Amino acid sequence: MQLYLIRHGIAEEHQPELKDEERQLTKEGRQKTEKVAQRLVKLGLKFDLILSSPFVRAHQTADILIAAGLSSQLEISDHLTFAGDIHNWLEDWFHPRNFPQNTQLALVGHEPCLSSWAEILLWGEAKEQLILKKAGMIGIKLPDDGSPVGRSQMFWLTPPKYLL
Amino acid sequence: MQLYLIRHGIAEEHQPELKDEERQLTKEGRQKTEKVAQRLVKLGLKFDLILSSPFVRAHQTADILIAAGLSSQLEISDHLTFAGDIHNWLEDWFHPRNFPQNTQLALVGHEPCLSSWAEILLWGEAKEQLILKKAGMIGIKLPDDGSPVGRSQMFWLTPPKYLL
Repeated sequence: MQLYLIRHGIAEEHQPELKDEERQLTKEGRQKTEKVAQRLVKLGLKFDLILSSPFVRAHQTADILIAAGLSSQLEISDHLTFAGDIHNWLEDWFHPRNFPQNTQLALVGHEPCLSSWAEILLWGEAKEQLILKKAGMIGIKLPDDGSPVGRSQMFWLTPPKYLL
Repeated sequence: MQLYLIRHGIAEEHQPELKDEERQLTKEGRQKTEKVAQRLVKLGLKFDLILSSPFVRAHQTADILIAAGLSSQLEISDHLTFAGDIHNWLEDWFHPRNFPQNTQLALVGHEPCLSSWAEILLWGEAKEQLILKKAGMIGIKLPDDGSPVGRSQMFWLTPPKYLL
């Protein structure tokens, strides 16, 4: 089973009157994310399900992936907001679903959450040693059974510039 | 400073009468490595120096990178054979050179050595959680000063199939 952690594209700046969760992708962010999505299609990727943070910039990123044909299934989860915790997500969301071993699952969310989740899956703890750019992604292979924490392997980490 | 760890391309199989260090790239290995090199050129990469293992399959891989125009400097080092140790390499080879901060350095070598070196640079120890395919690469950002062990960050990890 493979897990793809995808960071949202470039979003508008923080503003006093704008809630963080309502910040939208900029025109550049949208265009760059669309190009990344097209490249992922060309590389043959296809996700059985995309799980997205409810924040607008993440949801818009997930919509772009769906529109490009990378998946037909989208689900929104508070686990992918800044309040989310990977151990809770595994226990409450992931393990109960018993996905088949060849499932391709994409998570669209935020930093530093996504790279921390990746590090916890690989090494059991987060040390902030992975650089995940906006519209960049991490590919992780989960073990066939048992907990993925500290037992997963990374096969891909890319900034968007190498996907344009 | 950025360090690129590049695994040699697909090589001929082990044979009783053939020394491991003399195994050559296969035709497929050569072609795939050439395509990867061309893509790296298109992505704008340029290495100030390529350091290669003396083993034929690594040296041939480094030659392909040089021929593609990715660097004009090639050096061979026993540090990159299976007997090599990153701590010795850092002490005997890397630190004495005092490279400028924007240096782009490529190492061409073998598995599981290269991914172990990457993990030691990132997390201080090797846990075999990185998957580095033949003709794949890892990109690591070293800190501006002090030891890079456990203090570097990874910005890129890719199998060759995403570079073709």
